[in-house]
Amino acid sequence: MTLVTPALLIDEPRMQRNILRLQERLRGLGVPLRPHLKTCKSIDVALRLMAAPAGPATVSTLKEAEYFALGGVRDILYAVGIAPNKLPRVLALREQGVDLSIVLDSAGQAEAVVGACREARDRIPVLIEIDSDGHRSGIRPDDPELIETGRILHEGGAELRGIMTHAGGSYDCRSPEALEAAAEQERAAAVRCAQDLRAAGLPSPVVSVGSTPTAHFARDLTGVTEVRAGVFVFFDLVMAGIGVCSIDDIALSVLTTVIGHQQEKGWILVDAGWMAMSRDRGTASQAVDQGYGLACDADGRPYPGLIMTAANQEHGILSLRPGSTAALPKLPVGAQVRILPNHACATAAQHGQYHVIESDPSAPKTTWIRCSGW
Amino acid sequence: MTLVTPALLIDEPRMQRNILRLQERLRGLGVPLRPHLKTCKSIDVALRLMAAPAGPATVSTLKEAEYFALGGVRDILYAVGIAPNKLPRVLALREQGVDLSIVLDSAGQAEAVVGACREARDRIPVLIEIDSDGHRSGIRPDDPELIETGRILHEGGAELRGIMTHAGGSYDCRSPEALEAAAEQERAAAVRCAQDLRAAGLPSPVVSVGSTPTAHFARDLTGVTEVRAGVFVFFDLVMAGIGVCSIDDIALSVLTTVIGHQQEKGWILVDAGWMAMSRDRGTASQAVDQGYGLACDADGRPYPGLIMTAANQEHGILSLRPGSTAALPKLPVGAQVRILPNHACATAAQHGQYHVIESDPSAPKTTWIRCSGW
Repeated sequence: MTLVTPALLIDEPRMQRNILRLQERLRGLGVPLRPHLKTCKSIDVALRLMAAPAGPATVSTLKEAEYFALGGVRDILYAVGIAPNKLPRVLALREQGVDLSIVLDSAGQAEAVVGACREARDRIPVLIEIDSDGHRSGIRPDDPELIETGRILHEGGAELRGIMTHAGGSYDCRSPEALEAAAEQERAAAVRCAQDLRAAGLPSPVVSVGSTPTAHFARDLTGVTEVRAGVFVFFDLVMAGIGVCSIDDIALSVLTTVIGHQQEKGWILVDAGWMAMSRDRGTASQAVDQGYGLACDADGRPYPGLIMTAANQEHGILSLRPGSTAALPKLPVGAQVRILPNHACATAAQHGQYHVIESDPSAPKTTWIRCSGW
Repeated sequence: MTLVTPALLIDEPRMQRNILRLQERLRGLGVPLRPHLKTCKSIDVALRLMAAPAGPATVSTLKEAEYFALGGVRDILYAVGIAPNKLPRVLALREQGVDLSIVLDSAGQAEAVVGACREARDRIPVLIEIDSDGHRSGIRPDDPELIETGRILHEGGAELRGIMTHAGGSYDCRSPEALEAAAEQERAAAVRCAQDLRAAGLPSPVVSVGSTPTAHFARDLTGVTEVRAGVFVFFDLVMAGIGVCSIDDIALSVLTTVIGHQQEKGWILVDAGWMAMSRDRGTASQAVDQGYGLACDADGRPYPGLIMTAANQEHGILSLRPGSTAALPKLPVGAQVRILPNHACATAAQHGQYHVIESDPSAPKTTWIRCSGW
């Protein structure tokens, strides 16, 4: 391959398979997908993910919202708790005709939002974030602040659109039964909070749940109106370790070139370090620790036991995983290796573009640009 | 401050102090600095670091070399083992009048380089990388491949410029004595290899050593012709943990805004997660684990015991470090906090620009752009 290494590759057939898999799954459950675009940060990928060019979609930064709005996306959920100083940018996007909705999890934020709504004469749509598994942000389902927050929004002139939650705790699950239970816990908490809002005379047309693991293991989504998921488009070693995908589903890899050896130590040095892979060590706490990534040949077939065991800024050290009885492959200086990442979101974020390959990995068919920053 | 958060800040007076400190130190030892620009990746910072606008300088990617060459830098060492497929870009920069030198650590790479020299009728300057502490790449000082590689280069038409090594093992030192010993080991190995080359009738005008810890602890650099160091310009929590700097020397921070709380857990949520901080956990193996970073007020004064204990893509969780008896500061939604990073190179790489502050952190005086990619 003539690409400058390190280079970020998308295996497009695998990506399409991953997209189809979740779309079909959710169709069977009767719930639409609102894909999270924080993983891909690319309009080219987004257009393949979304139900329509206008969305719906989820983003993690206002920069993504602005970028995707320029690309024609019109229904966008900014799914990180709103800081009041970001409201002018929210309003500016809404003035351009984007149905941008936001999330919050406190009465104080609700007061700031209704103040901004009043001033701008706009009804900003808001989802109240609830905490369904204790892993991060959100109001606990039994906290009276839920109804108080809903009331401030509804009576203050915002558009109270409903409830959202993210079962981030599902990343710690280690069995299909645990994943199914996490999905049901996520669903039940969100539906209960929506019912509590409605019982208090408040609207909650939207009940939004999601994480890649729970989206793939939910057995029933009664009461849920949309599912969010992001990393499923590429998958990664963390998802394979949880059991959500297989290694052969991983559509993202970093192409790298061998630049040296330490023969006595069984080390192969490559020109992809943490700058190209990220410092993510998400598999460190899983049953199989993949180091900084799993090494594959140029066609994407894993070398038995070969992982990136250490990473400096622009150096990666490949060696056999502890206990491996495989033979170290003979990879001379100049040979090319592909590394599957621990965490697709983190690895992709280290790159400005994707090189898209189909069946022939030596001939990328095109380049897709990523957005970055805030 | 009116910056969009998260935002990367440089405290310029601290940066200038860090630069002066190392410059004066090396002046005392009689050895010039060849600063490593992989940390800053910014011509504005580079011009403050380098002895002259033309250099000398060190880079970790050819993209950096091309970027800094556009900015007027003329003496550049590309300090990652050369992959043969990168030689056309090396030659192209050299044709533009840049004195770009490269490193390698095998006879095979030397053969590829002399082949390229012959074809291009150029004498590419080469440093042979030696392995002074077993941490990464380089030929072992007692390996006959050193002389063989030197001979291939010298007789094949490359410019054998000398020896380079990087004492990366110094990052694991935990005392001034250990750091001084690491510096002496680095010096002695490089000088010995240069003498071995000369004894074999080969040139070695350059003896290049360096890492931020050894540069600050070397007591004698006899025989060394230049010192490389990068992270010293900003410093970071890892360097403070090693004892190379104090917390008050750290010139880089990420400005972030509070977006929520989990009161019962003592959590403060901010809008800087691993996308803004990086996934680097370099202090995890040190005496004081700083999580994903140390929280400071908007003026840069650390909050006792408050660190970023967990990070998702765009969420950071601040809480008191285990065992801390400090009170959790009252930081309402919208309050601004600055986070000192574990690893300046990794955190800076997550951002497209620096916001430069002097005494008044609420009024950034300018913005400096970073380069990225390969």
